[in-house]
Amino acid sequence: MIAVLKPGASKQQIESLVSWLHSRGLKTNIFEGEHATIIGLIGDTSQLDINLLEGLEIIESVKRITEPFKKANRKFHPMDTVIDINGLKLGGGNFQVIAGPCSVESYEQILSVAESVKASGATMLRGGAFKPRTSPYDFQGLRAEGIELLLEAKAKTGLPIVSEIMSVTQLPLFEQVDVIQVGARNMQNFELLKELGHVKKPVLLKRGFMNTLTELLMSAEYIIAGGNPDIILCERGIRTFETYTRNTLDLSAVPVLQELSHLPVIIDPSHAVGISRFMKPMALAAVASGADGLIIEVHNDPPNAISDGAQSITPEQFADLSEKIRRIREVIVAL
Amino acid sequence: MIAVLKPGASKQQIESLVSWLHSRGLKTNIFEGEHATIIGLIGDTSQLDINLLEGLEIIESVKRITEPFKKANRKFHPMDTVIDINGLKLGGGNFQVIAGPCSVESYEQILSVAESVKASGATMLRGGAFKPRTSPYDFQGLRAEGIELLLEAKAKTGLPIVSEIMSVTQLPLFEQVDVIQVGARNMQNFELLKELGHVKKPVLLKRGFMNTLTELLMSAEYIIAGGNPDIILCERGIRTFETYTRNTLDLSAVPVLQELSHLPVIIDPSHAVGISRFMKPMALAAVASGADGLIIEVHNDPPNAISDGAQSITPEQFADLSEKIRRIREVIVAL
Amino acid sequence: MIAVLKPGASKQQIESLVSWLHSRGLKTNIFEGEHATIIGLIGDTSQLDINLLEGLEIIESVKRITEPFKKANRKFHPMDTVIDINGLKLGGGNFQVIAGPCSVESYEQILSVAESVKASGATMLRGGAFKPRTSPYDFQGLRAEGIELLLEAKAKTGLPIVSEIMSVTQLPLFEQVDVIQVGARNMQNFELLKELGHVKKPVLLKRGFMNTLTELLMSAEYIIAGGNPDIILCERGIRTFETYTRNTLDLSAVPVLQELSHLPVIIDPSHAVGISRFMKPMALAAVASGADGLIIEVHNDPPNAISDGAQSITPEQFADLSEKIRRIREVIVAL
Amino acid sequence: MIAVLKPGASKQQIESLVSWLHSRGLKTNIFEGEHATIIGLIGDTSQLDINLLEGLEIIESVKRITEPFKKANRKFHPMDTVIDINGLKLGGGNFQVIAGPCSVESYEQILSVAESVKASGATMLRGGAFKPRTSPYDFQGLRAEGIELLLEAKAKTGLPIVSEIMSVTQLPLFEQVDVIQVGARNMQNFELLKELGHVKKPVLLKRGFMNTLTELLMSAEYIIAGGNPDIILCERGIRTFETYTRNTLDLSAVPVLQELSHLPVIIDPSHAVGISRFMKPMALAAVASGADGLIIEVHNDPPNAISDGAQSITPEQFADLSEKIRRIREVIVAL
Repeated sequence: MIAVLKPGASKQQIESLVSWLHSRGLKTNIFEGEHATIIGLIGDTSQLDINLLEGLEIIESVKRITEPFKKANRKFHPMDTVIDINGLKLGGGNFQVIAGPCSVESYEQILSVAESVKASGATMLRGGAFKPRTSPYDFQGLRAEGIELLLEAKAKTGLPIVSEIMSVTQLPLFEQVDVIQVGARNMQNFELLKELGHVKKPVLLKRGFMNTLTELLMSAEYIIAGGNPDIILCERGIRTFETYTRNTLDLSAVPVLQELSHLPVIIDPSHAVGISRFMKPMALAAVASGADGLIIEVHNDPPNAISDGAQSITPEQFADLSEKIRRIREVIVAL
Repeated sequence: MIAVLKPGASKQQIESLVSWLHSRGLKTNIFEGEHATIIGLIGDTSQLDINLLEGLEIIESVKRITEPFKKANRKFHPMDTVIDINGLKLGGGNFQVIAGPCSVESYEQILSVAESVKASGATMLRGGAFKPRTSPYDFQGLRAEGIELLLEAKAKTGLPIVSEIMSVTQLPLFEQVDVIQVGARNMQNFELLKELGHVKKPVLLKRGFMNTLTELLMSAEYIIAGGNPDIILCERGIRTFETYTRNTLDLSAVPVLQELSHLPVIIDPSHAVGISRFMKPMALAAVASGADGLIIEVHNDPPNAISDGAQSITPEQFADLSEKIRRIREVIVAL
Repeated sequence: MIAVLKPGASKQQIESLVSWLHSRGLKTNIFEGEHATIIGLIGDTSQLDINLLEGLEIIESVKRITEPFKKANRKFHPMDTVIDINGLKLGGGNFQVIAGPCSVESYEQILSVAESVKASGATMLRGGAFKPRTSPYDFQGLRAEGIELLLEAKAKTGLPIVSEIMSVTQLPLFEQVDVIQVGARNMQNFELLKELGHVKKPVLLKRGFMNTLTELLMSAEYIIAGGNPDIILCERGIRTFETYTRNTLDLSAVPVLQELSHLPVIIDPSHAVGISRFMKPMALAAVASGADGLIIEVHNDPPNAISDGAQSITPEQFADLSEKIRRIREVIVAL
Repeated sequence: MIAVLKPGASKQQIESLVSWLHSRGLKTNIFEGEHATIIGLIGDTSQLDINLLEGLEIIESVKRITEPFKKANRKFHPMDTVIDINGLKLGGGNFQVIAGPCSVESYEQILSVAESVKASGATMLRGGAFKPRTSPYDFQGLRAEGIELLLEAKAKTGLPIVSEIMSVTQLPLFEQVDVIQVGARNMQNFELLKELGHVKKPVLLKRGFMNTLTELLMSAEYIIAGGNPDIILCERGIRTFETYTRNTLDLSAVPVLQELSHLPVIIDPSHAVGISRFMKPMALAAVASGADGLIIEVHNDPPNAISDGAQSITPEQFADLSEKIRRIREVIVAL
């Protein structure tokens, strides 16, 4: 960490700052530029509050040199994390496609989708039971019953299931769920993240549509620091000024996150783009970018889907897309 | 609501759509443009899921004409909402200044700040007990103990208190807190919003730093729909590409929200700007813009504040700012 | 176009508006919703100033139903535009890779890069002679001499050349240049666009880093309206809050632009991402998304490049990337 | 400037970099952190291309410590710049209100607006002759004739005039114009900025809606470096995800720019907000924030204005607003 001092900082003020930093277990290294004096901080600065330092009267600015995340940082854990989901592996060269409806609606629906996506090559089933909706008047999900239906689909098809949690109080319902999803709006629900640190199952952590990649990794850090190392990072589009697509898919998150962290990175093109005909080329692009997996919305009857119909594709369309994904992935693996 | 049809929509498809809409209790009105056919929907479209409609094969786009919020909408409730906080009024011409430290640190600290801001004209006390921090390694607040200390400061000074909740499970601790704050990162924590709909005390709802004004009002709608009409809207800066300030204060939110809604609107210049010397002119600007109140960070010892030191001012600086606020407010009231 | 009226609009005001619209050659269609009256405008609304309408006292909002661009619109020109560049075709299934240095530095440099990228499969040569630089103290390009050097490289290698223009006054220098590039910062330099409408050669039009896709197409419309139909659209990253990459590559621009317009769409992953090791996966992703081409920065000696070294790759790296591009493209064509 | 090296940088590579930096006239200071080696650069780094350094193989990142602008920098020119416009002073405590129509439409219109705004306290007249319009089909301004009409209004009323230039080729027409405006879309039209460096009259430089404050000051630096020190900075709203207002007024630009630079800073609330009823409170807020002036659109007949009617106010509304501005300014000056 580098602290740039204000031009007028007195010698005494600087000495007082330096001894305070030493008392925090940090070493310092001062150098005088032409227009600024800089203090370099050496040691574990991840535990130093950057705001606190910035608040000091003699400080002009503070810049981190090393990333604030440690356990999620590839520098300290060079090997890829491989997530084991009931024997299915994700990350470290293991590519998986998760598919399923936005919302679980009925037993027939979830089973029908599960069977058809499995037949086309999906290796995990997604389905929302608790739905975060902007409007209190929109369908909020089948909730506990939705989880039940997912578990029945899992029992029938053998597909591991992924579903979204919205509150700490829902945790007991997720005991048989294979992967717990944290949605974009809860990426910085820190109380929830802390609880998930004590859970013994993988967490699929979606990037908030307003969050930086550093913040995503800090949220992963919350969970790992709590004791749960099995995190799947997921880019699902960020908010920009462009309005043709629901959000803007930030695909460069794939190589950046893979360099910064050892955690696997998957892409959700359905939510990113919001319109199924634009989603398909983005799914292929994600594979070509080197993503470790995809999560795609598939509905047996998109026009009548209770939520997010516009971004879902039919099982037939998924079968076609799945084949294309397989062929691009083949090239990428061979490169 | 207006649905624009794709050029190739067949007569039969249109008829089928129209009867489905009628079955939902809506009236329709079709008109044929040169390049597009449009269906106007008449009735209570706030309960119609816009995504569902967009997902239909024959639909090109859907545009809302009326706002999706009803109970928070000034069109249906023209009179200003005036919030009563233990006899103190906010909104409808009643301007209040909330002041206090970012985090409660000790009894001495919170009491000292409370007494000095009260002496300078603040009418409510803020203080964080539960702190949302990006890093798991940063100070997370005194939690339950922090709430205790705030209540003691309230008992001593008579100032109503505002403090932030981060999870449904913390609700029992807030029984004596006068105003419950929902922070920017929890603006779309819908499970929390639903619970706050059942609480009988005012909620200070902060705009998420990447949320639209419509989304802020939809979050307010969640709480009002649950039965709690006492909501104070708060703009605290949005995320943009500019990096000199922590966030970008969107001050035009004041007149826009006051036109769209009957709820009072206050400004948090401290978090918006993040640097106290830039915060002061923004506080005055907020008053001039017609805001119903301010929430300002004041710390007895900013450089040693445990969190957010950079954005806090001293009680002496607050006294000076408070006098300036009073004088600008005087002019605004007289205009 | 749809005009939503304010609740209080009087019958007389509405009639006066309607007759004004009729006088502009538009037909109208009024329908009364529960909370709003709406006027549908039928006819050529692309020539109606939307701001003018929004300024009327009785108007609440105006929404376009049809896009404001006509000549660039696929609805009116369903067939793909194929650009002919000295016999080389781009668009309509013809995929091309443009490569070369950010800035032309010397005869040896441009010739060496040109020969090596040609050997690896590039079909056009790019090179900057006029450089838009944020700082007046940074290298501004070799200017007229740079164009000369490019023409010499073209003469030697036979590769058509692309170079950026920054001002109307530079046009005479571009007579032998095959494709004139308009950079992101000049996408809305309307005086320049008008002039390029009178030029008889293809224009590579880069999207501004804070411009919408509609605005990009409106800038294309300026050039086509002037008489020049040969425009290559180029996405090169937009500005967001994320800072790990220089800009955020909005790859969904490819399918969206290809649906909205008949013009070919290429991707510039070098400028979008700004860091060459992140650029490579984005180049492959762009191919998989269905882009009509790529423009990639290649420098014989990136660490000593005068500008934009971080985003350039060496000819050896380009040869490797080019082979990967070829293989992904093969799969995409076969799908 | 600080260069952070990659963990694996060899001693030889570091030495080679250091001697290259020395050859550029810079001194260096190396210090070794726990996880990174850092080189501090001392000397005039404003002339060092940051991209070039970032492109070196052993560099992880480069951070500026001092701002890249020098002549526009308050650190090197502590005194406020006061602009003299035909005897009228702007900056350094001199507050001015510029008013007038978006577009000059006719002699009667411009004269009528000029006389009425002068009567209400405006001290300068604005009016657009060359209009940057997103659509080629929208009104492009009266061009040379518009400048003529402005000059006639100036002759009649004595008000200095401000008008926007869009291309270097228009410069001869601006000889009698008092202040040349560079619009948001041309803020990085570097060829135009260079030419304006040779002009002997003040330039009103608008911030691009996509540009950072640093970039705005770098564009000012272009003009000053060319020999013209008289620049008025103008914030006119930036592009964000919010859609209720046309752009988001970034009012914190006022104190930030006033700290970073000695140049005067004015606010254009009309373009920022785009809707006149929301513009008025923003004008007052701008005064309270300490801005050095305002530029406001006033039209004698807003609903029939040829461009930007929605954001204009009538002369009567301006008279009322002007009085309020005066009263807020009085308080600010007295504080």
